[in-house]
Amino acid sequence: MRVLGLDPGLQKTGWGIVDSDGTRLSHVANGTVKSDPKKALSDRLLELYEGLECVIAEWQPHTCAVEETFVNKNPASTLKLGQARGICLLVPARAGLIVAEYTPNHIKKSVVGVGHAAKDQVDAMIRVLLPGVKINGADAADALAVSVCHAHHVGTSARMKGML
Amino acid sequence: MRVLGLDPGLQKTGWGIVDSDGTRLSHVANGTVKSDPKKALSDRLLELYEGLECVIAEWQPHTCAVEETFVNKNPASTLKLGQARGICLLVPARAGLIVAEYTPNHIKKSVVGVGHAAKDQVDAMIRVLLPGVKINGADAADALAVSVCHAHHVGTSARMKGML
Repeated sequence: MRVLGLDPGLQKTGWGIVDSDGTRLSHVANGTVKSDPKKALSDRLLELYEGLECVIAEWQPHTCAVEETFVNKNPASTLKLGQARGICLLVPARAGLIVAEYTPNHIKKSVVGVGHAAKDQVDAMIRVLLPGVKINGADAADALAVSVCHAHHVGTSARMKGML
Repeated sequence: MRVLGLDPGLQKTGWGIVDSDGTRLSHVANGTVKSDPKKALSDRLLELYEGLECVIAEWQPHTCAVEETFVNKNPASTLKLGQARGICLLVPARAGLIVAEYTPNHIKKSVVGVGHAAKDQVDAMIRVLLPGVKINGADAADALAVSVCHAHHVGTSARMKGML
């Protein structure tokens, strides 16, 4: 099963893809889709849309998960993030994928074992879980953590149902 | 020139279309695209996306404007609105339209003459400006106000440039 994880952001949206056979994980690809801050907002969202569409067309994931946004205290940032997040949920849904959502703490707990792990602990654990991975930036690392979390979750559910 | 106005919302996104010859306005169509609250968020955004895509395909507007969201005090609502708003900006951009944005006060000032007009004053003025219009709900009324505001703005710019 191929899993796509997304870490939404208007300027940079991270994406990470892992393969899972239910117990073992392997890294497939990761990267960042960027939008040009000089462009109009609608054109920036279109850049994210087209970038994510390319990622899905190239790597053909079977399922997808998006980080559930931490609602911060700045309403303008929340609105910006919401707009980018709308695109991150839409593109896989248009491709016929079911889109799961996980909170940052759930993701950290799934990857490191504790919900309040530091960012560099998550990064280190991603490198342990996906040996030899070359991570293309902080947002791609976060997206790989989302995909690892989702792969664990789907694998566990499948084992509980006796499917694996 | 045919103008599409949008009033974004996750549950209901209003849309309104007017024709403008630079001085006179006429009503074309208005309505609401809804999403099913029982569905997953990604599927709800897909419903908005497909609904707006149909509106643009059917009515073929030349330009579009979206209400610039008033950032309220509830971060969860702001995030929801942001996600719906992302779709409202994306769909016309995908259709090759330039997407303008206006604040609620700018829209009210353009339609009624004052920035702090009450909602029923805006509605009443829309009925004066677009005689015989049948308005399909509150969100469609707001969207028609956005389209009237954008038509005024584009008309004024064109006259100033000696184009009309």
